[in-house]
Amino acid sequence: MSRPAPGEILVVGSVALDTVRTPFGEAVEALGGSASYFAVSASHFAPVRIVAVVGEDFPDPHRRLFESRGIDLSGLETAEGRTFRWRGEYSAELGHAHTLETQLNVFSTFHPKLDARHRACPFVFLANIDPDLQLEVLAQVKGPRLTLSDTMNYWIARKPERVLDVLRLVDVALLNEEEARALAGETQLVKAADRLIAQGARAVIIKKGEHGALFQSREERFITPAFPVESLADPTGAGDSFAGGFLGYLARTGRTEGAPLRQALACGATMASVAIEGFSPRRLAEVDRDEIQRRVAELHSMVDFDLEPTFA
Amino acid sequence: MSRPAPGEILVVGSVALDTVRTPFGEAVEALGGSASYFAVSASHFAPVRIVAVVGEDFPDPHRRLFESRGIDLSGLETAEGRTFRWRGEYSAELGHAHTLETQLNVFSTFHPKLDARHRACPFVFLANIDPDLQLEVLAQVKGPRLTLSDTMNYWIARKPERVLDVLRLVDVALLNEEEARALAGETQLVKAADRLIAQGARAVIIKKGEHGALFQSREERFITPAFPVESLADPTGAGDSFAGGFLGYLARTGRTEGAPLRQALACGATMASVAIEGFSPRRLAEVDRDEIQRRVAELHSMVDFDLEPTFA
Repeated sequence: MSRPAPGEILVVGSVALDTVRTPFGEAVEALGGSASYFAVSASHFAPVRIVAVVGEDFPDPHRRLFESRGIDLSGLETAEGRTFRWRGEYSAELGHAHTLETQLNVFSTFHPKLDARHRACPFVFLANIDPDLQLEVLAQVKGPRLTLSDTMNYWIARKPERVLDVLRLVDVALLNEEEARALAGETQLVKAADRLIAQGARAVIIKKGEHGALFQSREERFITPAFPVESLADPTGAGDSFAGGFLGYLARTGRTEGAPLRQALACGATMASVAIEGFSPRRLAEVDRDEIQRRVAELHSMVDFDLEPTFA
Repeated sequence: MSRPAPGEILVVGSVALDTVRTPFGEAVEALGGSASYFAVSASHFAPVRIVAVVGEDFPDPHRRLFESRGIDLSGLETAEGRTFRWRGEYSAELGHAHTLETQLNVFSTFHPKLDARHRACPFVFLANIDPDLQLEVLAQVKGPRLTLSDTMNYWIARKPERVLDVLRLVDVALLNEEEARALAGETQLVKAADRLIAQGARAVIIKKGEHGALFQSREERFITPAFPVESLADPTGAGDSFAGGFLGYLARTGRTEGAPLRQALACGATMASVAIEGFSPRRLAEVDRDEIQRRVAELHSMVDFDLEPTFA
């Protein structure tokens, strides 16, 4: 039985230049942004089209990295001015980025422009941008098979109702622990997930860093561990890389429920683990299918066992 | 194929009177102590013998609760004086107990006295007591099938070398996240587990509260999620109840590797979830086998899927 061709994926988000310092090193004006990490990650599984904006100063090598992964850049607008820049650092705990500087530059006036091929993509990722822009994209796409959203505390603090509007419209919403607690107003994670479902989300994925991720829909709850990395370099982009592996596998298989949905979460955890082993999405671009498959299988083996009756 | 009779379990630890306040209620002089939670939890799976000490003021109803679970109290010494008392409270996050008062009382001069039946138990739990006392017990037992230890930051800070001595002698050592980080001197949990193995531990279980637990031996790594509880009341005793379900299932099946080891971790997570739904080990005493089996199966279903080739 042969699988159908992988479905195309649209990502709308940021392409940025990141300057990051961690206890393990530093990167200056490296390729960054939510759409970048997502696209490079997902490109291992299915064709990806980016809709985003960069400035006239966007370096050609970054463009070539996308092209080396076969990512369609026809929706990557070049606007007058400078590319979005972010500067941050991570402490020893590595849980949280401390933002030192954000220059929105061309990103401050960005409105996603989708052509017919973008609108026809069956799989859509709304990366972390203003929820009003996410709603604009949702209004333009043509009956996608599956939509996935991300957000951040910045928007939850400023536009909680719009963030909830997006949550109710997409098939799956990604949040990290802190975001889920803030949006749901509930400390216990599982209860926060339940609350978000009660508030109208169809399904949520709560990313828990080294503790893995929790998937919760109206019907089921599922846990994937994090893949333990030996040499952590930079946590930037872990969440978007997770999203890329998750949506990439669903687009690849064309199945969005049951075992493939669960394996998609393992693919997400795998791609996040690859991303954080290096600065920028470079490791993510270089990793091969054998390594991805090996990590997915290891994640499976870390939780798999044959259940027997407990009191036989 | 019929299973052999469950192996007997020895627990050496504290039996206490706890006064606990949480955001969900309060208990005054309730049955507490590591041996109490462990014994009531494990008693659902296998016969349990307690070695511990109480004072002359130890209430009969607490003794009867143990007896209602068939727990052997022949090793529960009654010493002159008052029973060990602990008073603590939990904040809204519930991660940590804040100790308000500890009265060691009869526990301050406790030395475990094992008779022939205690020494012959094939499964042994060294609950959180002075590591020197844990070593005394290990010196007395007669070739047990499997030994499990617990500890706490108090001993890691004061007697790190003795805690490591115990770790090297037992088959499995239980620690919570904070204890593992402190003892290993390593922030990342998986690396902390690796470090403890490198320092001579055969296997460790790192308890991560609502994030589940990580098992790490020289050969394998395994993850179990936490069972999500609807109505958290009091986290006291969660770790010892985990230990009771884990060791209880191993003692019940007589198998200590492979799938039974993994199911034992799910039994541990299940018993912890039951314990925290009430104050004292009362809920733990009342829960029935159907409920335990249901939760173990739900934990399994939260992680189980049929792995397919990622790039077929």
